[in-house]
Parts: sequence; structure tokens; C-alpha cells
Amino acid sequence: MATKKIDRRGIVAGAGLATAGIAAAASSFPKPAVAQNTPELKWRLTSSFPKSLDTIYGAAEVFANALQAATDGKFQVQVFAAGEIVPGLQAADAVTNDTVEMCHTCSYYYFGKDPTFAFGTAVPFGLNSRQQNAWMYDGGGIDLMNEFYAPYNFVGLPGGNTGCQMGGWFRNEVKTVADIEGLKMRIAGIAGQVLAKLGAVPQQIAGGDIYPALEKGTIDAAEWVGPYDDEKLGFYKVAKYYYYPGWWEGGPMLHFFINKAKWEQLPESYKAAVTSAAALANVVTQARYDARNPKALRTLVANGAQLRPYSPEIMQACWQAAQQVYAEISEKNPAFKKVYDAMNAFKNEEYLWFQVAEYAFDTFQIRARSQKS
Amino acid sequence: MATKKIDRRGIVAGAGLATAGIAAAASSFPKPAVAQNTPELKWRLTSSFPKSLDTIYGAAEVFANALQAATDGKFQVQVFAAGEIVPGLQAADAVTNDTVEMCHTCSYYYFGKDPTFAFGTAVPFGLNSRQQNAWMYDGGGIDLMNEFYAPYNFVGLPGGNTGCQMGGWFRNEVKTVADIEGLKMRIAGIAGQVLAKLGAVPQQIAGGDIYPALEKGTIDAAEWVGPYDDEKLGFYKVAKYYYYPGWWEGGPMLHFFINKAKWEQLPESYKAAVTSAAALANVVTQARYDARNPKALRTLVANGAQLRPYSPEIMQACWQAAQQVYAEISEKNPAFKKVYDAMNAFKNEEYLWFQVAEYAFDTFQIRARSQKS
Repeated sequence: MATKKIDRRGIVAGAGLATAGIAAAASSFPKPAVAQNTPELKWRLTSSFPKSLDTIYGAAEVFANALQAATDGKFQVQVFAAGEIVPGLQAADAVTNDTVEMCHTCSYYYFGKDPTFAFGTAVPFGLNSRQQNAWMYDGGGIDLMNEFYAPYNFVGLPGGNTGCQMGGWFRNEVKTVADIEGLKMRIAGIAGQVLAKLGAVPQQIAGGDIYPALEKGTIDAAEWVGPYDDEKLGFYKVAKYYYYPGWWEGGPMLHFFINKAKWEQLPESYKAAVTSAAALANVVTQARYDARNPKALRTLVANGAQLRPYSPEIMQACWQAAQQVYAEISEKNPAFKKVYDAMNAFKNEEYLWFQVAEYAFDTFQIRARSQKS
Repeated sequence: MATKKIDRRGIVAGAGLATAGIAAAASSFPKPAVAQNTPELKWRLTSSFPKSLDTIYGAAEVFANALQAATDGKFQVQVFAAGEIVPGLQAADAVTNDTVEMCHTCSYYYFGKDPTFAFGTAVPFGLNSRQQNAWMYDGGGIDLMNEFYAPYNFVGLPGGNTGCQMGGWFRNEVKTVADIEGLKMRIAGIAGQVLAKLGAVPQQIAGGDIYPALEKGTIDAAEWVGPYDDEKLGFYKVAKYYYYPGWWEGGPMLHFFINKAKWEQLPESYKAAVTSAAALANVVTQARYDARNPKALRTLVANGAQLRPYSPEIMQACWQAAQQVYAEISEKNPAFKKVYDAMNAFKNEEYLWFQVAEYAFDTFQIRARSQKS
């Protein structure tokens, strides 16, 4: 069934990238140069992240710098850290309301408005980072999500990925499903609902409050990102068991949201420049996480973090609980069902392929590390 | 040792992206808009690929269309298929000689000039696709390669990836190292040298000549790309055993090579537009392969292709032979040794991290496919 959804010619040429004004140029190439409008613009971008998380915050800077450079300084986007204009979790609202022209955020932060927002970022047992890109750019994902975002008055473009996240910091080991029961864990969204089915008590706690909550034992566990970001917050000092994988975030994608009216007023050349600058931010941000996580992981382990895989029992129970949650939300929410069905069919096809060459290559490479020449 | 090489602040701000003129904009942001030169340019790009391989050939079109759109039609790059200006394997030479301003190609096609070219694309038991991006954009790879490319009179920018390739089509099964001996296989570059150490006889055969050579039994096996491209050439009809993984191409990257003088004459805004358009082509091309390979794999298997993993014995023997080849080339070629040592140290650190969350997530997801909800 996924094959129908990935009839890519139509999707690529007519839709996904059309959102960004590329298709128009493609269909008329080569054309004579036509003088168009290149106005001087100064936009504001509110980031959902603090400057201290330099990789994720930096994605917006990569975008803004590339855009400014490509437009000869005419299109400037000033990047504001979370809290400078609005709090980090209200970045999308500020775009909806035209307080700012655009933001850099995680779509799933707005899960409370509608759980369908989660698919822009990641959902439990969803796509890995490359598959999320494949779905977005060539599997109809950009279009599906922009159809969903339309009532919120913005368009979305992929803007980075952390890669698969870690499964959180725990004060005590969790080996069985029984160990999950009653566990107070800082985790939000669909993943929180999944863990609640196993008897955990999901908590919503802002980033800066996690450390004291873990230290005092107000919570038993907390998920954050991965080694590079987690190291900065020092959780290993108060909750030394570092679980993996973050099955709720196999390839969490960041997004640029742009006010719809502001987007539509842009000359085609600026739409194209924005699209390409966002793609640069997308690939560079994943590259930075991938290049920087190994050293951070070494440091965390040297400082006492204890790496632990989730047991097969826990993984399986979470997977089954996730299927229940998906069925329950889908029953009530047609928009969610539409995107979930598309994403899930795409995912099953993706792993048909990824389990062959990609997985066999990585498996061998991981084993070969121990026998250095 | 790799930690020293991934002191990324310096590398990102000062080097990799500086090649592309991004760093200059970054250091002076925000700055007042300054009117610069935006000349009308018409460049020619020669692709190493035929139009029939639409995904890989299409990468150059994604780039050209995005660049033209972002520059308001002022900077046009016309894409020529392999053979229209020069043969596919002479694309880089045409850039060196200024016959064309740029090309889209695989760096390792020029292995015959110097084996160091291989690192721009992929080497046996090297990096996977994400790791190749990480090395290039945040691990010093772009700089290292451009230092090497300089005498050839061009600069290189990443321009796509196929993901891990398949291990080729075989007329008969190969189970042991003894089965490799005497095997005539269409395979080039370092991988050919590795297989020669095991007694295989590497053959250099152009794409269009592979099918008849397999059919007649002039060769016993041939490597090409992966399901999406391989399906077009119909190899399953004459060599039904389809092996994996392509251990010599874990994440083969495509490149744009741009004549150095032409690059240096570009206004900074055009350099930035080229850099971002190349990043779009990079991410979109990997997305297309990832989205399109599953259906092609299904079709190939439905048509009789027999999937076979390389045996642990063969993988291990190839790995050991590869170490010998690396040592031998490194002894004679300091440029090769420099890049190999950097890439290899980076790779060992990458898999330290990838074996944790990424690998555990993919492992579970692959197993979960069989228990659809």
C-alpha cells in the first residue's frame, strides 16, 4: 500500500518541494533571466532552544547566515533564543499570531493542540533520521504536514535532526515491566501516554527543573536528548543509569515554521533561497550531532554514567502499548489517522530495505571496531 | 585520537563551510545590506550519469533548479548527461581543463590518478551515509578533500548519496573464500584491489556492457548500485544471486566539482547560493534513494532475484585484505595516508556512538515489522 503513497514523481514535482517554490523553477528551466522583486527584509526568528544547546540552537543560525549570504544581505533573519521574545514552547504560537515571521522548533511541542503535530518530529517506533527525510522530501510528508499546519497559519520546512535519541536517565535500573509501574518520569506527548499504559506517571517538567527534581527524587527518571546535549545538564550525577534507545524518537526532526501570509508574500527567489538554506541547516545539524555525540558519550561514561539497553520485555511492552495508543487516537482524530497510516505504511516499506544492505553493513562495522588493524 | 580531529568549533567556523563562503557571512552577522555584484551567469555542468538513472542524474537538476530560482534566474546552470559533452568518467577532467565550469560525479572515479580520490565517495569498510556527511560537514572532511583536490583545479561540495549499496549480482552462489578465487567480477578501485588479494580478477566494464558480459559468462559477477538503479538494468535475468552489503560503499557520496578559478570569481552571494543548493541536492538525493529502493527491491525479488548476505567468512577475509591494501597504499602515498588516518579515526568514534541508540532502535524496528498491529 505504501507504493501508492510513494508515487514520487507527482509528489516531488508537484507538491513537497512546490511548497518551497522549487517546482515552479524546475518546470520552466531554462528560462531567460527576468528581473524580479528583491526587497530588503528583516525577519525575526524565535528559537525554542537556549543558546547553551549550541547544536540545536545553531541550526537557526546556519539557516539565517546562509540565507543572508545568498541574498546579498537583503534578506536578514535575526535569531532570538527561547525566552527572548516568547518562551520556547510558544514559538509556533508566535508564528501563528504573526508576532514573529518564523520560528525554529519541534512540531511535537504542540501535541497538546492536536497529537498530529507529533509526526513532524517523531512518534514512538516511527522513522529513523534518514527515513524521516525520505518521507518528508520524497514520500509526501512535507505536503501532508503542511496540509495539517495550514489552519495554524504557517508552513513548515525540515530544519535538522538529532538522530535517534537516548532513552533517558534513571535513578535505578529498570529491567522488567513491573519496574516501570509507578515510575515518575519526565516525558511528554505520545510517549508519555504509552508509558502511562504500563503504569508509569509521566511528568511535564521544563529543562532547567529536571536536575533538581531528579536529585530530590521528585521524579525517578527523565528523558532529554542524547550525549552531546545531555552532558551539559549533568544528569549522570543524580541518575546514573543511561538507557537506550529512545524508542519514541528514532529520528526527531526539527522544523522551521513560517507565517503563511509572510511566506506567500515572498518573491519566488526568496522562497527558493529559504528552502535551500533550510536544507543546509537540516543536513549540517544532523552532521554536527553525529560528529559530536561520540566524544560526549565517552565523557559521560568516564564520569560514571552506566549505559543500559532497554530489555526486550520492556521494548515489546512499550511497542504493544504504542499500538493501542495509536488506535485510540486514530479513532477520535481523522487528521491523526490519515498521517499515521501514511507514515506507518512508509516505515514498514523503509525497514524492508534498511534491514538488507544498511543494517548488514552497520552490523559488520560495529563488530569490526574491536579488531583494529 | 579522533577527538582532536573533531574539535569542531574551529573546523565549522573556519574551514569546511568557509570553502563555501558561509563562514564569512556568519562572522559579520548582522550586517547592513551591501549592494554587491549579481552578474548574469550561464554555466555548463557535465554529469557522470545518464538521464535514465533519474535519481542520481536528477541530483544535478535539483541543484541547478534551486540555484536558478534563488538567484532570480541570474545564475543558470545547464545540466548535460554523460557523453553529451564528455564521457561520464572524464567529468572531473573537463572541470580541471575548464571545458565546463562544473560537474556532478563520484570522486572515486578518478582513483586511477590518485587513490586518495576515493575518500570523497566511499572506501571499503568506511563510513555510512550519515557518517560521511558528519565527516564532511563537521569533521574536517570538506577541507581535507579540497586540500587534496586543489592541484586538480577544482573545489568539491557534497552532492548526494545513494546510501549503502548492494554487494553485486552473481551467476553462482559464493559461500566461502575459496568461491572467490578466480572469480571475474566487474568492480573497480580499492574494492577491486581488495578482492584481488583473495584471488578474484577485477574487471573494468562500462555500465552498458555489464549485462551482455554476465549473460555470456565473460564475467561471473558485477556490482552496480542498489535496487532502484539495478532494476533498470535487468541483471536479475542473467545473474540471480543478489549479495549484500556492498562493504566497499557503505555511504557513497556524490560530489559537485567546480573549477577553482570560476569558483573564486563568484560573488560571495553566489557562493552561498551554490553551497545551499548543493545541500538541498545532497539531502533530496539520499531521500529519493531511500524512498524508492523498497519498491524496487520488492520487484526484483518478485522477478526471481535471490537475496544473499555475504558470509561472515567472506566479510572477515575482505576486511583483512582491505587493511593490507590500506597499509600498502599508505606506505607509498602520504596524501592517501593523511586522509585515511583521519577518516578511519573518525569512523571508529562514529560507530562507538552508532552502536548504541541508532543500532538498537533499528534492530527493534526490523524485528517489529513481522508483528504488525
